Amino acid sequence: MNRQIVLQSRPAGAPTPANFALVERPIPEPSDGEVLTRTLWLSLDPYMRGRMNDAQSYASSVPIGGVMVGGTVGAVVASRDPRFSAGDIVLGSGGWQEYAVLPGASLRKLDSALAPVSLYLGVLGMPAMTAYVGLLDLGRPREGETVVVSAASGAVGSVVGQIAKIKGCRTVGVAGGPDKCRYVVETLGLDACVDHRAPALAEALARACPNGVDVYFENVGGAVQQAVWPLLNQFARVPVCGLIAQYNDETPRPGPSMWSVLRKRLSVRGFIVSDHADRLDAFLHDMSAWVREGRVKYREDVVDGLEHAPEAFLGLLQGRNFGKLLVRVAS
Amino acid sequence: MNRQIVLQSRPAGAPTPANFALVERPIPEPSDGEVLTRTLWLSLDPYMRGRMNDAQSYASSVPIGGVMVGGTVGAVVASRDPRFSAGDIVLGSGGWQEYAVLPGASLRKLDSALAPVSLYLGVLGMPAMTAYVGLLDLGRPREGETVVVSAASGAVGSVVGQIAKIKGCRTVGVAGGPDKCRYVVETLGLDACVDHRAPALAEALARACPNGVDVYFENVGGAVQQAVWPLLNQFARVPVCGLIAQYNDETPRPGPSMWSVLRKRLSVRGFIVSDHADRLDAFLHDMSAWVREGRVKYREDVVDGLEHAPEAFLGLLQGRNFGKLLVRVAS
Repeated sequence: MNRQIVLQSRPAGAPTPANFALVERPIPEPSDGEVLTRTLWLSLDPYMRGRMNDAQSYASSVPIGGVMVGGTVGAVVASRDPRFSAGDIVLGSGGWQEYAVLPGASLRKLDSALAPVSLYLGVLGMPAMTAYVGLLDLGRPREGETVVVSAASGAVGSVVGQIAKIKGCRTVGVAGGPDKCRYVVETLGLDACVDHRAPALAEALARACPNGVDVYFENVGGAVQQAVWPLLNQFARVPVCGLIAQYNDETPRPGPSMWSVLRKRLSVRGFIVSDHADRLDAFLHDMSAWVREGRVKYREDVVDGLEHAPEAFLGLLQGRNFGKLLVRVAS
Repeated sequence: MNRQIVLQSRPAGAPTPANFALVERPIPEPSDGEVLTRTLWLSLDPYMRGRMNDAQSYASSVPIGGVMVGGTVGAVVASRDPRFSAGDIVLGSGGWQEYAVLPGASLRKLDSALAPVSLYLGVLGMPAMTAYVGLLDLGRPREGETVVVSAASGAVGSVVGQIAKIKGCRTVGVAGGPDKCRYVVETLGLDACVDHRAPALAEALARACPNGVDVYFENVGGAVQQAVWPLLNQFARVPVCGLIAQYNDETPRPGPSMWSVLRKRLSVRGFIVSDHADRLDAFLHDMSAWVREGRVKYREDVVDGLEHAPEAFLGLLQGRNFGKLLVRVAS
């Protein structure tokens, strides 16, 4: 049988375990051009919160009763696509389930000799590529500028901060709690990290950014955004990647004053990595070198067993994870 | 004597005639490298409202007692710059006064045989170049897309709309009152114009934009912005040129939700034309051809006499002008 986590009901405000259900269904059969995979690793990412809503988003909602979506690394069990054979390790979008039938054309074969395959869901995968295109293409940091990144110990933020350092920027993270802040400075090598749970966030951030902020990589919104905004310099760039502090709003809260956008000639841009697929080769080239050379470090937060995915995901939305959150579905 | 309009006091909220004073001072003498000009035309533009405030802006405030700033066309009276002689007609920043001493390096000589010289303050000048760079470089309209421009009969908006039509876009203006709306459609040739003073603005705008909005050229903010925002398409661009409906706010009002920026991958960018001086030649080349060929039309709203500048400026802030507002200071 195939164990799956399905969307049982849509959340009103913050999601709860009752919004999910574990079901068992027969393992499906691949048709022509399809591949049956056994899930090894499931990636849990903040964007999945949006898929739980009915509202129009940049991607379609998960239907009630549907399997939660998600990036996966799986082992091919049976293939009706000539490019894949049993035993191949593949990257795809298998979702929150133990087995998935996927179009061969949607899969990428991974070489487990090159790197631990879970990295293709993190520092060599979608979250890191999000960091790469958002920072480099939208943020356009120049040497000596100041970059601030929120959720700085997370899967996206940790890569943003390290690339900004590679590019010669003063780089300041914002993270929740002293352990994460210490990690951001001591392990990731950022110049400073401000704890958004500590009092006087705005003052602490201002002290950490004596020359103002030229790039704010936005992952969280809310109070952190409000603290960063007055520090933005003329011509600052704000790539908007996520707003995790606002995902449970039932009515979208207003944003920063447009007067600041005009007066400071800000460039504020929402983006999603899938619109930038043309940058995949450049990303893989640069990032695999940086990881190999130890210039980009990573940390995985691994949860064992598909049945723990909902709880782990709810923790992610509250910042309880520490590093890239992964579910080890099978070994 | 030199009559001048000076800033008498800073406005709290909407400016009033009492914020200005007419003073007489001796006509100044040019030093080496300087030119004394007699003002023929003074341009009145919304950005001047910002200069009346003490708050940090992209340009410095006018000091209390200082002459109000502004673009002018003047006749050279005396020159200590070898490039200029008495009788030359020059474009510069003479401000709200009858005579100005200006650095020769800041002046551009105009050929009155080519075009009426007042046009260099309008359709061949700063407002039109603002439209040109804002629409083409930041808005990047593509043929068949829908462009909405607010203040569509004004000095900037009228050029934005006509360039958008030249580029093959469905182009919808927003203007105040039936006369301006008729002008926008019948004279400027836009596809539709919505009266922001009429009831049900949002519905009227939605009807005029059946395929949503790909570029919103923002001149006004406020209620018009709120009506446009839900119509923005994925990947829409919003060049933020002005926020005339918000200039009198004592506390900046919040902006649109960042969730919309993220979800629709919007690109929201504040700009000021002086940052784009490298585009002057391209602008003059294209715009003078378009004006000569009758593809870009213009309308001037001329007020006679420097003493009427404050009243005319206050009317501009309330949308009482109809076309590019100019003061004929001398003939």
